[in-house]
Amino acid sequence: MKGLLTFAPGPSQIYFTVEDHLREAFRTGIPSISHRSKTFEQLSADCTNGLRELFGVPSDWEIYFVSSATEVWERSLENLVIQKSLHYVNGAFSAKYHEFAEQLGLNPRAIKTMEGTGFLSEHIEQTDAELISVAQNETSTGVRTTNDFISRIREKNPEAILIVDAVSSLPHLQPDFKLVDSVFFSVQKGFGLPAGLGVWMVNSRTRAKAGAVKEAGKLQGTYHTIQQLSDHAAKHQTPSTPNVLGIYLLGKVCRDFLRRGIENIRSETSYKSTVLYQAFSENDHLKPFVSNPEHRSETVIVADTGDHTKKLYDYLSGHGLQPGDGYGKFKATQLRFANFPALSKESFEKLSDLVRDFRP
Amino acid sequence: MKGLLTFAPGPSQIYFTVEDHLREAFRTGIPSISHRSKTFEQLSADCTNGLRELFGVPSDWEIYFVSSATEVWERSLENLVIQKSLHYVNGAFSAKYHEFAEQLGLNPRAIKTMEGTGFLSEHIEQTDAELISVAQNETSTGVRTTNDFISRIREKNPEAILIVDAVSSLPHLQPDFKLVDSVFFSVQKGFGLPAGLGVWMVNSRTRAKAGAVKEAGKLQGTYHTIQQLSDHAAKHQTPSTPNVLGIYLLGKVCRDFLRRGIENIRSETSYKSTVLYQAFSENDHLKPFVSNPEHRSETVIVADTGDHTKKLYDYLSGHGLQPGDGYGKFKATQLRFANFPALSKESFEKLSDLVRDFRP
Repeated sequence: MKGLLTFAPGPSQIYFTVEDHLREAFRTGIPSISHRSKTFEQLSADCTNGLRELFGVPSDWEIYFVSSATEVWERSLENLVIQKSLHYVNGAFSAKYHEFAEQLGLNPRAIKTMEGTGFLSEHIEQTDAELISVAQNETSTGVRTTNDFISRIREKNPEAILIVDAVSSLPHLQPDFKLVDSVFFSVQKGFGLPAGLGVWMVNSRTRAKAGAVKEAGKLQGTYHTIQQLSDHAAKHQTPSTPNVLGIYLLGKVCRDFLRRGIENIRSETSYKSTVLYQAFSENDHLKPFVSNPEHRSETVIVADTGDHTKKLYDYLSGHGLQPGDGYGKFKATQLRFANFPALSKESFEKLSDLVRDFRP
Repeated sequence: MKGLLTFAPGPSQIYFTVEDHLREAFRTGIPSISHRSKTFEQLSADCTNGLRELFGVPSDWEIYFVSSATEVWERSLENLVIQKSLHYVNGAFSAKYHEFAEQLGLNPRAIKTMEGTGFLSEHIEQTDAELISVAQNETSTGVRTTNDFISRIREKNPEAILIVDAVSSLPHLQPDFKLVDSVFFSVQKGFGLPAGLGVWMVNSRTRAKAGAVKEAGKLQGTYHTIQQLSDHAAKHQTPSTPNVLGIYLLGKVCRDFLRRGIENIRSETSYKSTVLYQAFSENDHLKPFVSNPEHRSETVIVADTGDHTKKLYDYLSGHGLQPGDGYGKFKATQLRFANFPALSKESFEKLSDLVRDFRP
């Protein structure tokens, strides 16, 4: 909202360089370029190279541009599963991935935890599922799933395609590209960009699996099959006219992150997370929703605010800081605070001071 | 491209108010608003109301936001066809719609004309296809299909869902909402907006058909089924995070068009078309690709430029006017000129003068 700094976890606070990049884009005619032009191919390569550099994406991985992370849920199921998928579900978004598999007539299974709790060793099982999904950070509840846990899923299931929903964990949590096969996110969270673009990174195993699913005769969709995405990505193009401006801006913000230093951004994110959780612990009128500190997300920080929710929301907004609402059934009793690179240390210190001093 | 006015038919010249609207969007925090907020619902309603007013969309029609017109090809086939579709094909884009139906395992038929020619009475037939598609304007070849022709398809096929690809015909050609069931477009053509948003308008018959297809047990997809789109549109929302900024800008440009007067825009478009075709006729070194004047598009004007193609391209570009390339196999022998509202009368007069005077 106008004049407020928003801590909503997506669409979220726009990264401070974005408006300048947009102005530059208009100055140089980017919004009118053809998506079949050399200029687009260059811009698209700049963006994927930026992501590769930022996260150390291995060379056998390809990077695709789609319309949203939601689209990746659907496309991955269409392209990579003939029969069975397995979904680690610990909140509304990971649950939706599982639900999509049901809607597509697959035979999915969900391993569920209570909202606000993370996965434990007992949740790891061997399965014959072709695709296993796990959200590195469940945006609805602020629960994270560690790379260590993901590595144990992998250990038990060397054959499955392991896909990581990194929607609200990137750029903070480094994906372990040796452990997993596929990682996706959307740009309106950690990258601080306007909504309307999803990014899907896949390794060669994922592409081989898509090929095998096709061989088996399954219909995989049309313009956004992995095959189509891959064929076009090889030319730094897309199967249909994409959100050109979104790709341009993502490339620019990757460069900004690289200049700032990804490790600097990450340590600042950890610092901001620490001060806010600390403030929670110093105020008796609220508490972290996620009780186990090991499962607490650093990038989406959720507070149980009970009866004080509206009061705290208004109090913070009155100071120019707009919290995110609790998700779904928690709307009236929780607040969420995105901790993305667009939000400065100073804004988190101010937020934390206000939270600490809050009296209902 | 920088400094050039582009006549490429999409992504195309940005409408001259867009940059100001973007600045205003950033000033008021639009890129950060939640797609579940009242602010978004209002912005989304403004956009659909603008479209309704601009085209006189009847009240039983709903308007959905998706990622592209390409997506509508896929979603319409998934949602509206159990067995059979029929596609009027007169160029690369209408052909792709037909191809999508094949990829989805349907049993589609295509009624084809040669590229550069339009449909004639003999092409109208009675069919038991559930969906009939026709492109009001085939962007690859600059051939238009008249409402009169569409009305004769309807006459012979009162039961089928008749869907019109209006990608490069809007806002110039008024859809006849009494004749057809579904109309779609993307915003990077006639609306002069950055790419990354598609709009799909459907009547109640279309929704009923989607319901019947669902009843019959067909899988229709996940988040972008007509049912999901409809349920969310009722609240002025979308099933997943959309291109919020794109919807905002489309609403603003609709208002700009309304202020300018849609009839003024249309008569100016006709004027611009007339002067350019006139220039074609006065230069022996090129000619309109579409020989039958009744089938010539006013919004995408295609010239057969043969061996002179590169020379004419360079000559026009040297004067600050960038033609669009010919499509596909015509890349080396044709040039295309979009005639959208973003391109002024003066720019068309200049273009026409240059074309008239061109000597290879």
